[in-house]
Amino acid sequence: MAEKKKTVVIVCSKGTLDMAYPPLFIASTAAAMDMAVHPYFTFWRMDIITKGKMDSLKLASVGNPSMPMPNIFGILPGMTALATKMMKGQIKKSKTPTIGELIKVSKENGVNFHACEPNMEMTGQTKEDLIPEVDDVIGVATYLDLAAEADLSLFI
Amino acid sequence: MAEKKKTVVIVCSKGTLDMAYPPLFIASTAAAMDMAVHPYFTFWRMDIITKGKMDSLKLASVGNPSMPMPNIFGILPGMTALATKMMKGQIKKSKTPTIGELIKVSKENGVNFHACEPNMEMTGQTKEDLIPEVDDVIGVATYLDLAAEADLSLFI
Amino acid sequence: MAEKKKTVVIVCSKGTLDMAYPPLFIASTAAAMDMAVHPYFTFWRMDIITKGKMDSLKLASVGNPSMPMPNIFGILPGMTALATKMMKGQIKKSKTPTIGELIKVSKENGVNFHACEPNMEMTGQTKEDLIPEVDDVIGVATYLDLAAEADLSLFI
Repeated sequence: MAEKKKTVVIVCSKGTLDMAYPPLFIASTAAAMDMAVHPYFTFWRMDIITKGKMDSLKLASVGNPSMPMPNIFGILPGMTALATKMMKGQIKKSKTPTIGELIKVSKENGVNFHACEPNMEMTGQTKEDLIPEVDDVIGVATYLDLAAEADLSLFI
Repeated sequence: MAEKKKTVVIVCSKGTLDMAYPPLFIASTAAAMDMAVHPYFTFWRMDIITKGKMDSLKLASVGNPSMPMPNIFGILPGMTALATKMMKGQIKKSKTPTIGELIKVSKENGVNFHACEPNMEMTGQTKEDLIPEVDDVIGVATYLDLAAEADLSLFI
Repeated sequence: MAEKKKTVVIVCSKGTLDMAYPPLFIASTAAAMDMAVHPYFTFWRMDIITKGKMDSLKLASVGNPSMPMPNIFGILPGMTALATKMMKGQIKKSKTPTIGELIKVSKENGVNFHACEPNMEMTGQTKEDLIPEVDDVIGVATYLDLAAEADLSLFI
């Protein structure tokens, strides 16, 4: 192959189920098109790549469910659960893959999963807390080196 | 003209009135500067280009009003209506164009409106449900081909 | 230096404390790496660069606290205050810099802060309302000229 691969770098920052899909749809499609793909999970988005958290991703119509803090839904029990169930039903009905399936197929197609070092320091997480699909833990400078050379850089 | 036109590709994904403006301001300005502009409406943002939905875009200070699910505002009636009315008043007072006016002027300046194929499959929409300004319905791979070649690619 | 500096252009649009950090972390790191950095504050994000507003930035788990409108938290007093206090405590504990410190160090490293002209017209703000670190007030066309030439353009 003489031509250089296209490179896609995606910052994944939003902490709800609905915003977990966009970066993974783009990453898995780009990998299937033989692009080099680098999703960088950071800020409120570390839950996707944290062991045991992937299946409990919730769709919030209000607020950020990955934040460990009091939430309006404590007062209105069942709301987030209901919204999440409705979206999961719609996903199943339309045969949309789950988050776990998207990560698996992305990995098989060579996607490089990166976790955010300063974020992990702030929350006290270690590499052992992350799912095995994560390739490495990188800082903002390494991200910037990748992103400034990429053909496509997105912040989602 | 010997020089190649600059190309701008914008994913429009956020489903509230306040986040409907940023991509359309950028798209209409870029088109007026003779750039080739490709907004790609997807995820929670299809309402902008769906017939009869444009005028009912609401500003939510809470949650995502384009989701068909129970909302805190069902319990606090009038909140979203009041917030939307206040923003629409501010828009009118400062002579900011409406969403409909921005789409019209963008189209006159050659903006190419794209709708998201997987999103339409998931919700059962067809091309007939969309406003006539939409040029075509494209998948993520076509978007990636456009975006990786663009001078400017944004995810809004 | 024979090599041209890398250029990073960042639209800063989200109006909560949690989303104030990502653009400033990226901007300050890029500046420390000797890149030319241009954050463009606009939409719901003008508060960061408005005099006297920086310290009152709040973390909302619900809605957009920079909007001057009735908010669910008026009904549930103390919620936003509690969420903000918890995040500020976590920031202090992990020695994460404050927003003000990030702006100061970014400025010392040559970051160019831009404010959004149409946004200021819409809200009636003048240059005097902004913090002295702001270099200039520019329109969307000037932003597009910068962004389309940049090595990395993000919309946050």
